[in-house]
Amino acid sequence: MPYELENNAVLMPKPEKDVLDQYPLLIARLQESLPAESLVLDQDALAAFDSDALAGYHQKPMLVVLPGSTEEVAVTLKICRDLNIKIVPRGGGTSLSGGALPLADGIVLGLSRLNKVKDIDYANRCVVVEPGVTNQRITDVVAGNGFYYAPDPSSQIACTIGGNIAENSGGVHCLKYGLTTNNILGLELVTIDGDILQFGGKFMDDTGYDFLGLLTGSEGLLGIITEVTVRILKKPEVAKAMLVAFSCVEDGGRFVGDVIGAGIIPAGMEMMDSFALTAVDNYCQLGYPKDAGAMLIVELDGRRAEVDDLIQTVEAIANTNNATNIRISRDDQERETIWRGRKAAFPAVGSLSQDYLCMDGTIPRHTLPDVLNAMKEMSKKYGLDVANVFHAGDGNLHPLIMYNASIAGEQAKAEAFGADILKLCVEVGGVLTGEHGVGVEKRDLMETMFTDEDLKQQQRIKCAFDPNHRLNPGKVFPTLHRCAELGHMHVHKGSVKFPDLPRF
Amino acid sequence: MPYELENNAVLMPKPEKDVLDQYPLLIARLQESLPAESLVLDQDALAAFDSDALAGYHQKPMLVVLPGSTEEVAVTLKICRDLNIKIVPRGGGTSLSGGALPLADGIVLGLSRLNKVKDIDYANRCVVVEPGVTNQRITDVVAGNGFYYAPDPSSQIACTIGGNIAENSGGVHCLKYGLTTNNILGLELVTIDGDILQFGGKFMDDTGYDFLGLLTGSEGLLGIITEVTVRILKKPEVAKAMLVAFSCVEDGGRFVGDVIGAGIIPAGMEMMDSFALTAVDNYCQLGYPKDAGAMLIVELDGRRAEVDDLIQTVEAIANTNNATNIRISRDDQERETIWRGRKAAFPAVGSLSQDYLCMDGTIPRHTLPDVLNAMKEMSKKYGLDVANVFHAGDGNLHPLIMYNASIAGEQAKAEAFGADILKLCVEVGGVLTGEHGVGVEKRDLMETMFTDEDLKQQQRIKCAFDPNHRLNPGKVFPTLHRCAELGHMHVHKGSVKFPDLPRF
Repeated sequence: MPYELENNAVLMPKPEKDVLDQYPLLIARLQESLPAESLVLDQDALAAFDSDALAGYHQKPMLVVLPGSTEEVAVTLKICRDLNIKIVPRGGGTSLSGGALPLADGIVLGLSRLNKVKDIDYANRCVVVEPGVTNQRITDVVAGNGFYYAPDPSSQIACTIGGNIAENSGGVHCLKYGLTTNNILGLELVTIDGDILQFGGKFMDDTGYDFLGLLTGSEGLLGIITEVTVRILKKPEVAKAMLVAFSCVEDGGRFVGDVIGAGIIPAGMEMMDSFALTAVDNYCQLGYPKDAGAMLIVELDGRRAEVDDLIQTVEAIANTNNATNIRISRDDQERETIWRGRKAAFPAVGSLSQDYLCMDGTIPRHTLPDVLNAMKEMSKKYGLDVANVFHAGDGNLHPLIMYNASIAGEQAKAEAFGADILKLCVEVGGVLTGEHGVGVEKRDLMETMFTDEDLKQQQRIKCAFDPNHRLNPGKVFPTLHRCAELGHMHVHKGSVKFPDLPRF
Repeated sequence: MPYELENNAVLMPKPEKDVLDQYPLLIARLQESLPAESLVLDQDALAAFDSDALAGYHQKPMLVVLPGSTEEVAVTLKICRDLNIKIVPRGGGTSLSGGALPLADGIVLGLSRLNKVKDIDYANRCVVVEPGVTNQRITDVVAGNGFYYAPDPSSQIACTIGGNIAENSGGVHCLKYGLTTNNILGLELVTIDGDILQFGGKFMDDTGYDFLGLLTGSEGLLGIITEVTVRILKKPEVAKAMLVAFSCVEDGGRFVGDVIGAGIIPAGMEMMDSFALTAVDNYCQLGYPKDAGAMLIVELDGRRAEVDDLIQTVEAIANTNNATNIRISRDDQERETIWRGRKAAFPAVGSLSQDYLCMDGTIPRHTLPDVLNAMKEMSKKYGLDVANVFHAGDGNLHPLIMYNASIAGEQAKAEAFGADILKLCVEVGGVLTGEHGVGVEKRDLMETMFTDEDLKQQQRIKCAFDPNHRLNPGKVFPTLHRCAELGHMHVHKGSVKFPDLPRF
């Protein structure tokens, strides 16, 4: 019974009966072409793939393919093309926006078995991996030689590099070292037709359109990534963390702006509001300044001489902005203690609430105090608590909305609160997402940010890769146009006529 | 007589008679909609637009539009759409790959009058400008406050930011600070249909496809850029230059690899071979070590403490690699003296030769000595001298091939030599261009680098923006396919049928 539609999947498209009818043929074709271990057909086993990290949404796919090679990916896509089957790609399943949420009339293409590290090349400072390798493992394989992979999402132990590319993931250190898009050198892509393409590689490449950039952050709508070349960085000689407390978010917000304005780009600059601060300190007992209105963790890294010099400058800026408490790590152990609370912030908030919704929006740095205060007002209106733990340096907010899913209507209320926060982000000049992607979660908010013509131009790109919308449909775009509508083509007496093209 | 085809424009497409016949109507429509100062019709005045910095290619356009506002750009594009006229965008006209070479049956859309600095925002470290603002001017307007714009192509006094985006320009400092694509935060684009779209802006933006990346380096084939938001950086506290000489290119090449391998990213790392070195020293008398086989200029910048520390490390690496001469700048004046020779390298080589062709290809760093030696062999084969002055840190070569255009056949010989160099770049794992673009110059070499399926996927992107190929046709793509051929559409009984799309 692969046709069952979960009743909570309200955001997902209705399955098409003629696609569902292909099920027996699909299984036969896949079994003919793929080894048994590459197929998951058992209903209990499929349940493990029915959701990702977006709370409250479940849907079993028709079946799951776990290819063992690029060729198996290509074969699967060719079979899906022949039978008009939809494909939902999946990495580690940690998407917070529902990017890997299955379709009742589609397959899940899970890349977890493509988990080989294929090449470590120190001379060119890069590593070539398959997409199912976890983010953390890339750092692990080069750490012995003093290197690391910079983007570090909170889920780095579980999330895969393929998923990082799909969502253009960030992390604490992306303020200084960039998002995934700034750390990728090459990709291998299998197109919807099963063709295998290479983009970029180990060396500088400036020829042709920037497909690396285009594919990074495309949320699985353009093709299947089967190989990735990432840049690795030399671990800095020294890193120091500062903990800086302020009596109010206004002082903290001004401090952030002043540090950046002084030409200093810290390796990380994280902020917690008083709610998050209290939750974390109760959970971990780290001796955080509980009475503070806002607390910042600032990390500075580089050559020892440089870091010592920068610490002094940042300390002076903190004092100018009325810091009430400053602590500076003297060694790596103290640095880790300062960070421990930040890393435990989500579970700490989780311990206070049955359920929580982790939002992701980005705002101009100077609007930080206003947005945080507006959120307090919304919290009263909805009667739901909200804690803020976020990447202050680049204005990337992560409000955690607390609710109880077992109370009827409370999940919907939390989602409405979240949508209001994101609309506010767009209103003050920010955007809908910093690093979690649009997925299904923010799909219906896209129109608050983009005009109709913007969305059409985005869909023309989609059509250039996947004209029949079989790759991850139902994600990102609030409405799907037929590609023909977008193609500038003239319809003449019922048939499509293409204008004459220049002759060469 | 706007129909005249220059006889040396062998690489350009043949003009279409029915387009040329639109000339009187085009003039009438443009005169009706644009102020007189936005139109160039006079044949003598048009001669100033008949070429860019690619030597030996000339073609007068039908006419030139120099719009004074985004709205005038949109109006012009709508008129061109109605009359099926081609458009060649032009910035400062400094393209070395013929990116702004006009078409006999197209207009040139020159953005030079769109040269306003619209906003300087230090709090958000960015500047908003129109596309005709020169690269140098952006730095000039913020220099008083200690800021600068990082990418610095050699032509920075004349080239415009719009052209920099079209070609994804680099420069000496892009090793550390990135190419244009890494320094652009927002764009306004007028589409081929005259719609005005906004991408990115002053703040972090991770929503939707990476149009900023896609448009940067798209060589004027996707749309007209009418506004740009660039990132500005705080000028480093101190910068020091080192001049390091080696007896052979092998030692110099290994030194480059060892510096990068030690985790140091210099602000610039430039190399000259002995031919260039001698030419420069004869021209400027800077006391360069003339007997050296290779000379490097390494710039290190940052906090004073950091730079002092790095200089020592780089000096040690130089000594390990048998440096024959090391000089370190003690102040900014000495630093400028060290750089003066590098900046004069092109005119210095020019003084030795009637004409020269400046090539642009990129190779893996470890192949540097082999490629330089292979070029010497080619030089013998073609009987033409070649000098090498290049961005060694990122493997971006700029061979200068010397020839005399007044000797029949010698330009063709120089171009064949250049093509052989670029083919070699691709063969050793590099690419066709580092920062000059493909344009007409390297168009016919694209197939040495890309498969047919690669080129088709690139053209699907082109079709998503400009399905009738009216924007800068004849550039980048060796052959143009009709968009319909690329669209995965099924032809059924002579008419085009679109497969059913998922219903939402």
